Amino acid sequence: MNRPVVLISLESPHSFWRLSSEHERALSAAFPGIAFRRATEEAVPHQLADAHVYFGWRFVPSWLFAAPHLKWIASPAAGTDHLPVAEAHSVGVALTRSYGFHGRPMAEHAMGLVLGFSRGLFTSQRVQRNRAWWKDDLAEEFFDLAGATMTIVGCGSVGRHLAQAARTFGMNVIGVRRTPPAASEGGITWVHTTAVDQVVSVADVVVNLLPATPATDRYFDHDLFSACKPRSLFLNLGRAATVDQSALLASLDTGHLRGAALDVFDPKPLPARHPLRLHPRVVLTPKSSVFCHAYMDEAVSFFADNLHRYLSGQPLNGLAEAPATRSPLVGG
Amino acid sequence: MNRPVVLISLESPHSFWRLSSEHERALSAAFPGIAFRRATEEAVPHQLADAHVYFGWRFVPSWLFAAPHLKWIASPAAGTDHLPVAEAHSVGVALTRSYGFHGRPMAEHAMGLVLGFSRGLFTSQRVQRNRAWWKDDLAEEFFDLAGATMTIVGCGSVGRHLAQAARTFGMNVIGVRRTPPAASEGGITWVHTTAVDQVVSVADVVVNLLPATPATDRYFDHDLFSACKPRSLFLNLGRAATVDQSALLASLDTGHLRGAALDVFDPKPLPARHPLRLHPRVVLTPKSSVFCHAYMDEAVSFFADNLHRYLSGQPLNGLAEAPATRSPLVGG
Repeated sequence: MNRPVVLISLESPHSFWRLSSEHERALSAAFPGIAFRRATEEAVPHQLADAHVYFGWRFVPSWLFAAPHLKWIASPAAGTDHLPVAEAHSVGVALTRSYGFHGRPMAEHAMGLVLGFSRGLFTSQRVQRNRAWWKDDLAEEFFDLAGATMTIVGCGSVGRHLAQAARTFGMNVIGVRRTPPAASEGGITWVHTTAVDQVVSVADVVVNLLPATPATDRYFDHDLFSACKPRSLFLNLGRAATVDQSALLASLDTGHLRGAALDVFDPKPLPARHPLRLHPRVVLTPKSSVFCHAYMDEAVSFFADNLHRYLSGQPLNGLAEAPATRSPLVGG
Repeated sequence: MNRPVVLISLESPHSFWRLSSEHERALSAAFPGIAFRRATEEAVPHQLADAHVYFGWRFVPSWLFAAPHLKWIASPAAGTDHLPVAEAHSVGVALTRSYGFHGRPMAEHAMGLVLGFSRGLFTSQRVQRNRAWWKDDLAEEFFDLAGATMTIVGCGSVGRHLAQAARTFGMNVIGVRRTPPAASEGGITWVHTTAVDQVVSVADVVVNLLPATPATDRYFDHDLFSACKPRSLFLNLGRAATVDQSALLASLDTGHLRGAALDVFDPKPLPARHPLRLHPRVVLTPKSSVFCHAYMDEAVSFFADNLHRYLSGQPLNGLAEAPATRSPLVGG
C-alpha cells in the first residue's frame, strides 16, 4: 500500500509566509509514514492526482476535479473567503482554516494604532515638517488609556489577545459576541450583539473584528456609527464588507469620530485620491495586521497537530462549514 | 500663632496641569490648620512675604529674597532643571520634585512609538496618500515585539513602567543604571552603565531616559550609536542634552538606525527645515510624553503626602540635592 501523500504549495513573496526547507524537514521527521511533496501553484493541478491532503494558500475550485483521492484541504490562513468551501463540502472534502496565532500580531497592530491616536503620534508625524510647535494641539487631543473603554465587536480569539493588551494599559474592555461566555472571562465584560448600540455608546475605542457573512454585511452603518460615543476612535481589523465606508466618512467629517484606522477597505487598494486615503484623521495599513515573522512556524505547527488528528481519525480543528463564513475572527 | 501659609501658583494653558477648585477644596479639607493661598505667577513675589511653603511650576531665584519665612519649594514636575536648586539650597530652603506618576503616560507614549515603527504604522501614514500599495514594503520593514530586546538606558521609575508594558508584548528588557538592583527585579535584566556598549549591541529598541547631568552630556555620541545593533530603533524620552544630534542623524542617514522617535531635542522647537524634522524615519513629539489627564490629581496627592511629612517633621520625598540633576528620571 502506498504512503499517504500530502501536497504542499506555500509560496509567497514574503519569507514569513513561505514553507522553508527546515519546516519541510521537520514535517518529514515527525511523519515518517507520509510522503510530502511540494508544488508551485502552477503545478498543483498536475500533482493532485494521488494527493490525500493539500496544505496551501490557494485552492481553485476546478482543482477538485483533478483530485480523486483528496480528503482534506488545509489552509494556513485565518479566513476562508478565498477558498471553495461550498464546493469542497459538496464533494466530501474537508476544508480547514488555521487559528490561535493571529491574535498576537493583530493585538500589537491594534494597540499601536490606538496609541498612535491617543498619544497624538500620528498628528505629530503629520505636522512635524510644517508646524512650528504643536504642543497645545496635542494637549487638546490626547487621551489616557487608563480608565478608557474599548469595545471589541466580534470578540473571538483575536479579540481576547487584544483585550489582554488593552487591560495592561488600564483599559476597560467590553466584548461583543453572538455567543458571549457566561462569566467575565479574561477580564472582559461580555455582551450579546443585541446590546451593541449601548456598548459602542460608552466606548472611547471601538475595534471591529467581525467576519464577513451575510449577517454582518455593512454591520457598521450610519445608525451604528451614530450610536458611537462622540470623539471615539474606530478601528477595522476585520473585513471591509462589514463597514459602510460612506457612513464612516460622514462620521469622520462631522467630527463625531475622532479618527479611524483601517487595515481593510474596499476596493483594495483604494483608488488614488480616495477620501479615506486623504483624510487627515484616517490611517490605512495594507492588510498587514497579521504580519508576523513566526507566522509559518505557527501555521506548520497547527497543521502538524491537525495531521496527527487526521491520521488517528480524530475530528479536525478549524473545519469550515458551508455556507462559508468569510473570516473566522469570531470563534476559534 | 498664625496658621502656616502655603502659597500655590499652578497655572497652565492646559487643564490637566492646573490646580482646580476641587483640588483646592480637598487640600483645605485635609489640612484645616493650613492657610492655602493662590497667586498668579505675577503675584507670587508679592505674596511670598508670609509663606512657609510654595507649591508651583516656576520659581524665579530672586523670589527667594521676598520670602523670609519660606522653608520648602514643592514642584509638581519630575525635573528640577528649571528650578533654583543651588540657590534654594544655599539659603536653607528645601526643594522637592514629584515622581511615581510619570511612568504610566510615558510608557504609553514609548510603546506607541515602538509599535508605530514595528508595525509600519508611521510608514503607512506617510505613504498612504501617494503610493498605490505598500504591503511589500511593510513586509520588509516590520518586526515582531515578541522575542525582541528593549534596552532602557537610565532605567528608573519610568523605565520600570515601560519595562512592564514591553514585557506584556513578549519583549526582553535590559535596564541600564549606575546603581542596578542586585536581582532580576521586575523581570528586567539589570546591568551597570559600564556595560552599556554591550547591551545596546543586542537591542532592537534602545530607549534613552537619562537625566541631564554633567556626566550624561552627549552620552549618546558617535561611538555609542555605532555600538547599537544594525537596524535598531532609538527613542529619546529623557533629555535632549544627553544625545549628540549630529551623530544621531549620521546613524540614521547611513541606515545603521532603523528610525528614531524624539520627545526632546535641541533647540525646542527645532528650526523650520531642520533635518530631524524632515527625516522620513524620524517622529518628533513636542515633549508630550508626560501628558496625562490625571496629572494634577497625582501631583496634588504627592504634595499632600509630603505636606503631612513636613508638618510631622518627617523627611520630604523627592528632595533635590545641589548640584541640580536636571531630570529625575533615574531614581525616584
